Amino acid sequence: MRLLSRHYDESMARWEPGARERLVVAAVDLFTEQGYDDTTVAQIAARAGVTKSTFFRHFTDKREVLVAGQETLSQLFAEGIADTPAGASPLQAVAAGLRRACGAMGQLNREIGARLKAAIAASEELRGRDALKSVSLAATITTSLVARGAPEATAQLAGELGVLALKRGYAKWAEAEDAAPEDLVRYTLEALDELRDASAALG
Amino acid sequence: MRLLSRHYDESMARWEPGARERLVVAAVDLFTEQGYDDTTVAQIAARAGVTKSTFFRHFTDKREVLVAGQETLSQLFAEGIADTPAGASPLQAVAAGLRRACGAMGQLNREIGARLKAAIAASEELRGRDALKSVSLAATITTSLVARGAPEATAQLAGELGVLALKRGYAKWAEAEDAAPEDLVRYTLEALDELRDASAALG
Repeated sequence: MRLLSRHYDESMARWEPGARERLVVAAVDLFTEQGYDDTTVAQIAARAGVTKSTFFRHFTDKREVLVAGQETLSQLFAEGIADTPAGASPLQAVAAGLRRACGAMGQLNREIGARLKAAIAASEELRGRDALKSVSLAATITTSLVARGAPEATAQLAGELGVLALKRGYAKWAEAEDAAPEDLVRYTLEALDELRDASAALG
Repeated sequence: MRLLSRHYDESMARWEPGARERLVVAAVDLFTEQGYDDTTVAQIAARAGVTKSTFFRHFTDKREVLVAGQETLSQLFAEGIADTPAGASPLQAVAAGLRRACGAMGQLNREIGARLKAAIAASEELRGRDALKSVSLAATITTSLVARGAPEATAQLAGELGVLALKRGYAKWAEAEDAAPEDLVRYTLEALDELRDASAALG
């Protein structure tokens, strides 16, 4: 499963994003240009070159355009943790979650990431939603680890490490001009290692 | 400096919250009862038994009622870190920040905390603001530690530990029926110790 899948358009003989992906790009661009509140579903559909009913086949409202990818990410992260062997440490389980979640992100996520960052910087409401995404993902990781028997404090700390590793790895991936899609997994796992080493230096 | 100070009302011979505190309690109660969006400054002032101009002597708008305490908390935390001797470890600096910030919270914070939790649970907008508060405080701690020469990964991790310790200590304090104001500092420092021990068990 990819967070944003593409289909191969034979008539154009190149990779072309599908309606869902075009809707996400259009929505994020409009949120950046004119603000989240002032953007309507009709405008998003028009910018993406689809009808409103196509929009509503993919999303229930404009808010869902922003959260749909996040819910998939959290779900993949939780599945990666749940599939880890019982004897694995909390950080090994977090690494498995990162592998599963990041393995599903493609080039389009890189492109949308930069746009989304600008939209979030421009809107306090979107900053709140973005913060809520981090808090929700940390809570998902914590719950998944507690379900495996980790003590709550350990699970909470591991949840924060997972989110930080994802943020640091994603930032490096989004900023590196020549990064390949598969580099995201490597960057986030390197960030997790770095954070584990940092935890030994906390004093 | 207290986050919510009280003045001694001699005519009533008991501790009585001042206008600012009554405005905060009234606002949080109204947000819970009827939602954040549907609450006006006029309603908050009326509930608190003050005029609208008194409201505007304390706050610029209803949003500021929620964030004013948070900004003071972040500022105190940063001052506590900045005043720590240069040789202190990142976690010792975080502990000093917790001591400074939590030492300023009184009984009224306990009472408002429970109300605020209900208001936040009832509103997605307030959940977003609450998440942003956590992210902002973590960023403040990180910046304060980087300014003291801590590597960025260490400082970010310490920032998350500081926020988690505050959340865990505050929850225990708010839930304990007979906790004294000064117990908050102890609870958050115990939570910080527990998280440091947990970091050794991450694997």
